[in-house]
Amino acid sequence: MRVIGIDPGLRNLGWGVIDMAGSRLSHVANGIIHSAGDDLALRLLTLHRALTEVIDRYTPEAAAVEQTFVNKDAVATLKLGQARGIALLVPAQAGLTVGEYAPNAVKKAVVGVGHADKVQVQHMVRHQLPGVTFEGPDAADALAIAICHAHHLQTSARMGASSLARAPLDITAGQARIRRAQP
Amino acid sequence: MRVIGIDPGLRNLGWGVIDMAGSRLSHVANGIIHSAGDDLALRLLTLHRALTEVIDRYTPEAAAVEQTFVNKDAVATLKLGQARGIALLVPAQAGLTVGEYAPNAVKKAVVGVGHADKVQVQHMVRHQLPGVTFEGPDAADALAIAICHAHHLQTSARMGASSLARAPLDITAGQARIRRAQP
Repeated sequence: MRVIGIDPGLRNLGWGVIDMAGSRLSHVANGIIHSAGDDLALRLLTLHRALTEVIDRYTPEAAAVEQTFVNKDAVATLKLGQARGIALLVPAQAGLTVGEYAPNAVKKAVVGVGHADKVQVQHMVRHQLPGVTFEGPDAADALAIAICHAHHLQTSARMGASSLARAPLDITAGQARIRRAQP
Repeated sequence: MRVIGIDPGLRNLGWGVIDMAGSRLSHVANGIIHSAGDDLALRLLTLHRALTEVIDRYTPEAAAVEQTFVNKDAVATLKLGQARGIALLVPAQAGLTVGEYAPNAVKKAVVGVGHADKVQVQHMVRHQLPGVTFEGPDAADALAIAICHAHHLQTSARMGASSLARAPLDITAGQARIRRAQP
């Protein structure tokens, strides 16, 4: 099974794709999508297009996005939220389920402890994906998220919890109703 | 010129479409998109699909989205940010410029004062769009945003500030670069 991990950000969005065969993981590709310009809508559009291109190219079967750290800077949280909306939307548009993991859960899955630093995380990602080179820290984080999700899917498979690994998703599970008032 | 206003929300997203002929405004349609379910990615997907449907149906030439009030609740801000990402993305995907207005700017444009309450805003929206009925408060807010943007476009046109009314947008203004590291 192929898994994509996404580390959302408005300026720099990290992504990493891995393959999982039984308990064996291997690196496929990783990268960073940079958006430029002052126009927020255009930034989101460029993130959407580039991430769609990545998913079309590498055709992952499952996706995971880091749960945003809610810090005390509301403006930063809002910006991150907007980028995160795109990071969740694109895999859902491709019919993938999207797992969400808190940063500490990712660290615990990859390193074994929730308070690991970035250097430890990158060391363990290299250990689990031999030969990998990172496009940058955001891409390394994205690979860590993909590894975390892969472990979760393996555990679910062992436990027979197929509901955690359902794919593709039944879109009808999410309802949208539009009500209109005509003139 | 046809203008859509959008009041973003994860559960309830308000939209309102108006026509502007010189200084005369008229109501076209308004509504609320409801998303259901616990799966955040699916909620965003349903918002995206339904808002795309609205824009395809009413073919606005300009769009405006309310600037989110950044409150002290970081979790709420993050949720709103995710919905706002979709509200900005969809018109940008249709090639529209997307204006952004703070709630006080909307109230000032519609009522004349920045501290107007919801009842005053709805009263003035009814006054400026004779015969309108609202699908709900979020739809009324969305129409107020559309009116605010229409006033802004009128003023820009009078001042010859064509940069404020540019449409369709030159997508190349927003750059996306993807860097990849292959295995």
